[in-house]
Amino acid sequence: MKPMAEPATVAGIGEFGLIERIAGIISKNPDPEGVVVGIGDDAAALEFPPQSLVLATTDIMIENVHFQLGAQTPRDLGRRVMVINVSDIAAMGGLPRYALLSLGLTPDIPVSFIEEFYAGVGVEAKLFGFGVVGGNIARSPERLILDVTMLGMVEPARVVRRSGARPGDQIMVTGNLGSSAAGLAIILDHLHDRLPHEVVQYLKAAHNLPRPRVAEGRLLAESGCCTAMIDISDGLASDLNHICEQSQVGAVIFESALPIADATRALAGAVQKPVSEYALFGGEEYELLFTVRPGCAESLALALRGATGILATTIGEVLPAELGMRVEREDGHRFDLPPRGFDHLMSASQ
Amino acid sequence: MKPMAEPATVAGIGEFGLIERIAGIISKNPDPEGVVVGIGDDAAALEFPPQSLVLATTDIMIENVHFQLGAQTPRDLGRRVMVINVSDIAAMGGLPRYALLSLGLTPDIPVSFIEEFYAGVGVEAKLFGFGVVGGNIARSPERLILDVTMLGMVEPARVVRRSGARPGDQIMVTGNLGSSAAGLAIILDHLHDRLPHEVVQYLKAAHNLPRPRVAEGRLLAESGCCTAMIDISDGLASDLNHICEQSQVGAVIFESALPIADATRALAGAVQKPVSEYALFGGEEYELLFTVRPGCAESLALALRGATGILATTIGEVLPAELGMRVEREDGHRFDLPPRGFDHLMSASQ
Repeated sequence: MKPMAEPATVAGIGEFGLIERIAGIISKNPDPEGVVVGIGDDAAALEFPPQSLVLATTDIMIENVHFQLGAQTPRDLGRRVMVINVSDIAAMGGLPRYALLSLGLTPDIPVSFIEEFYAGVGVEAKLFGFGVVGGNIARSPERLILDVTMLGMVEPARVVRRSGARPGDQIMVTGNLGSSAAGLAIILDHLHDRLPHEVVQYLKAAHNLPRPRVAEGRLLAESGCCTAMIDISDGLASDLNHICEQSQVGAVIFESALPIADATRALAGAVQKPVSEYALFGGEEYELLFTVRPGCAESLALALRGATGILATTIGEVLPAELGMRVEREDGHRFDLPPRGFDHLMSASQ
Repeated sequence: MKPMAEPATVAGIGEFGLIERIAGIISKNPDPEGVVVGIGDDAAALEFPPQSLVLATTDIMIENVHFQLGAQTPRDLGRRVMVINVSDIAAMGGLPRYALLSLGLTPDIPVSFIEEFYAGVGVEAKLFGFGVVGGNIARSPERLILDVTMLGMVEPARVVRRSGARPGDQIMVTGNLGSSAAGLAIILDHLHDRLPHEVVQYLKAAHNLPRPRVAEGRLLAESGCCTAMIDISDGLASDLNHICEQSQVGAVIFESALPIADATRALAGAVQKPVSEYALFGGEEYELLFTVRPGCAESLALALRGATGILATTIGEVLPAELGMRVEREDGHRFDLPPRGFDHLMSASQ
């Protein structure tokens, strides 16, 4: 027997005990519209608006592969896993509606951790209007495993794929590039003391709490100007490559046009790395990378800024496929842009 | 450098290499009707029949917690993970439509394993008419992780929940009880040599390749007779308890009425355990447990047998909540039926 003062662990209260606690947390938020059967049956039964398409995406995250327990609060971790999936719905031009959440839990994890994690999930659910309608809990001996499935809706005429970019289209991006990678560098390399407090705060928040561009994605989808779209999860170069491959086009990125926060420049200066490394190859940004028909860029940027306050920047141009992916430096010289990003499986063998 | 003859591993070909292989396997099956955007974009975009509800369920399985690699072929493992999720859709009265599949892969796993696994997934996709429309691959250092989300459809008038059972309803079950648990006992306790070959084959197949009762669930949902339904994953007692709790009723099970295969009786005899232990508490059956209005049972059993060839057996009766869950032995004595099943988290601390 453990002494009474020990915090309750997952192993201590068991699967059904834990499900009850979680159901209790979730039920504090009323079921959103459209949930005919929610948590606690064999499957959820969900309504979608008539004529809409159902968007579905899933993402698995594993402790010490995709995240570290100490790097953020449980609450921020809960927020972050939802954001990653909301962002995929945004990149299709859709709205998130329902989430399912599978957890693999280590036996010694405190119940309070799970409760705070779900509180974080609830924050994003409220912000973006989706409901948690199902899930699954399992024992995972070594690592915390988080697997989220997000269901969203989009009108058939508004779906934006990766495959519609055409030579001559302009390449745009929301927000800043490289902030998330810079934030991760601070966390992993313990650079807190080498930079001003505001810089550290800004970059860590960019990494720990990226903001999915749902309203922006909807506006872009509704504009009819947007020919292809993706959210930046692997890094600009890698995700641009996905658009190029699926659209069968090439691209040039103008290095001097990349939108980069002052804080990211400060971090790059402190560690003596070119700041474009962060902007071109840094992953987990969750900004939208998209292509627009010629002549659309300026009005679209204005509309976006007016409606959401978010800056959209033109950073390049779509080229014919045979020209490949290039980056143009400030002096006008063009170099190949390697489609590298972070490959979780490859890195295992290094 | 490894010698050339080594089989290709996941770490060797990397995440994007593996995704390409998997996409190749899956694309051999044409996208089923309704897939507007399939694998390879930020999210799948899916059509559902007008006015239908979307069913959604997810299930995470972890190596050496939920399955063992050596206990079945990779192909059968692929079939089994899909079946478990198809069964949840069946238990709502629905039809499976689309699946998303997240994998956590150990770096040393052979690519051929993944290919055979997906071939097994494809077998069930063809049998039950669903398409694999998305997923996710991650590195998992210690264990293979399989997480499936299944989306299905059901007409709003046909949804069967766990909460509709009323005192006086009869309790029925499809197929036999205990076969899967008996098959697992053979595998885990190495009982192959102590039983006739046919018994071993029958029980191992019951465990490794349970058949989800989709046609049966549809017929029950359409009959209008069925007041509550669940698929037996934790065991009869545990899953009956879910119906009792959510319907706020009690129940009595008649032990002598439990449908048990001769092979399960042979195994129970060989290990000198009461065969009702397997039937009442054995999990992973994926038979349907359901309640029907008084007077419906006989005609429903006839209709099921005629349409699908599957036997449905009346095994008990719904009681008022205050009578709890009971089992009636052959001599007419009633005992409490504990709602125990297999608790994955509790078992971790034993």
